[in-house]
Amino acid sequence: MSDRSQRTATCTANSNIAFIKYWGDRDPCLRIPVNSSLSMNLEGLTTRTRVTFDPKLAGDQLTLEDQPVTGEALARVSAFLDRVRQMAGISLFAEVRSSNNFPMGAGIASSASAFAALSLAAAHAAGIALGEKDLSRLARTGSGSACRSVPAGFVEWQAGESDEDSFAFSIAPPDHWDIVDNVVIVSQAHKTIGSTEGHALALTSPLQTARVADAPRRLALCRRAICERDFEAFADMVELDSNLMHAVIMTSTPPILYWQPPTLAVIHAVQAWRRQGWPVCYTIDAGPNVHVISLSAHADRVAQELSGISGVSKVLTARPGRAARVDEDY
Amino acid sequence: MSDRSQRTATCTANSNIAFIKYWGDRDPCLRIPVNSSLSMNLEGLTTRTRVTFDPKLAGDQLTLEDQPVTGEALARVSAFLDRVRQMAGISLFAEVRSSNNFPMGAGIASSASAFAALSLAAAHAAGIALGEKDLSRLARTGSGSACRSVPAGFVEWQAGESDEDSFAFSIAPPDHWDIVDNVVIVSQAHKTIGSTEGHALALTSPLQTARVADAPRRLALCRRAICERDFEAFADMVELDSNLMHAVIMTSTPPILYWQPPTLAVIHAVQAWRRQGWPVCYTIDAGPNVHVISLSAHADRVAQELSGISGVSKVLTARPGRAARVDEDY
Repeated sequence: MSDRSQRTATCTANSNIAFIKYWGDRDPCLRIPVNSSLSMNLEGLTTRTRVTFDPKLAGDQLTLEDQPVTGEALARVSAFLDRVRQMAGISLFAEVRSSNNFPMGAGIASSASAFAALSLAAAHAAGIALGEKDLSRLARTGSGSACRSVPAGFVEWQAGESDEDSFAFSIAPPDHWDIVDNVVIVSQAHKTIGSTEGHALALTSPLQTARVADAPRRLALCRRAICERDFEAFADMVELDSNLMHAVIMTSTPPILYWQPPTLAVIHAVQAWRRQGWPVCYTIDAGPNVHVISLSAHADRVAQELSGISGVSKVLTARPGRAARVDEDY
Repeated sequence: MSDRSQRTATCTANSNIAFIKYWGDRDPCLRIPVNSSLSMNLEGLTTRTRVTFDPKLAGDQLTLEDQPVTGEALARVSAFLDRVRQMAGISLFAEVRSSNNFPMGAGIASSASAFAALSLAAAHAAGIALGEKDLSRLARTGSGSACRSVPAGFVEWQAGESDEDSFAFSIAPPDHWDIVDNVVIVSQAHKTIGSTEGHALALTSPLQTARVADAPRRLALCRRAICERDFEAFADMVELDSNLMHAVIMTSTPPILYWQPPTLAVIHAVQAWRRQGWPVCYTIDAGPNVHVISLSAHADRVAQELSGISGVSKVLTARPGRAARVDEDY
């Protein structure tokens, strides 16, 4: 291919929420996880990214939310683009413009949607046609959970043991099960310890090995619950798996406590609703926000109740989401 | 001894706070724990108990806080008194009157001080002279952690493997180290799941085996930190061990979440103070209250700050406490 002309693509990817969590790497460079995970894409909680390979550039450029970014974030994107350039056999630098429609770094997986969108946009702009599996593998090298934002709907990330066999695939399309994620934003503060650093601490917890050893059982039960649309079995596994991840996080060295007081208020509210028979459960990523999953029929009432809890600043609502996609209008 | 006359004794025992926690039994009937634990008696947070063996009684009687008690609580005390009667070779029923000077069932170990005081009072009233070790063993059969409220100061409960070798002993007297426990009461509500039931659930957590396997290491480091009065090393172990216990509790089946929003607010405050260099740390028993341990010189300021945290209803202050004792004035 020629290095002389500008090549551009704009892509959109959804964030995802893990029901069986990824925490800890077998290979931190390639982001090969220690256990397989399971998630749902979140329709409407998106990152939109434009990549333009341009012979006029003297270096990669990154713009997030219309703000130029340098330092570590640019270095991480540049290293990722190197991988794409190598695959495509090009040496052009790129301009990357990216924006989210939800707050970054507060427990919604912004790096997941970001690197899923970047993978697709960079590959498309560079003129390489990657299948879903290879796009997922590529996204994984940018941010582990990004590989799950590439396929559609309900997604399993097979841990694998190498770059080749660690990728995500859809286990059910978005319309398979009518559940809703009410994302409870309890703090928009940027978290002090990012996921990448957290993953590196996982093995300092005396509990990580036990969490990982039990993960295949939890994943199998959760997958079956999704396939059979068995909310009760699903809820038990989702809450247990979330608690297990936070158990590891709060017992690592140094310990991290992502939960804030309103996080706990939401958990207790969800537990009370479950005891009353509502089809609802909670799961929490590496941050203070709570994802409250319910059957669609209960979602409006759940969202309304959640909004009334002290310390809750916002509730975002998402249904099972589509795959990462190339935008038509670029 | 004669069964004809009234025999009475009044005894007082302190509550204790575990730095290395007891959670899970090897033998639930004899309350032989799965791991050794380490605690400090809390001077002034006491149970005072009078036991009167009386030939006029047709059954055991229990009065708590001036209220007559029947049902499960009486049955537990009666079964305990059977043990004492067997040791003493008597068959008299007893009147037991007991009162605490702190709220029951909310994360301060009221059953610990209660069964320590009851052990000493019952043995004394029954006319049997037990040494500290045998008193500790006896108290253990009433409530596991009660065995730690028998000896003075800083106390280790050697898990052992049988009734004979599972008892507590003092590793340092109360004046060994000038630290203070500010007990933050965030809720006086009676907890929904008691410790005895919680212990029985411990092994349903995928994390309990790992917690127990690592316990001897934590205990050795905590014991050394106490002996050397090394607050920083002490604080690291105390917080880790508390988090490990709650990790197990929140991942058992069913899961239990003892923490309330103010619990977490206090934890975050303590973490912030530690980062500022204050000699302070937290530990939480099976309830929502937080024990904030600090060097004595910082205790007043800590107590003052704690009182200002939203949701904190009371702060009780305790120094390292004495052994269980027979009251002079009965």
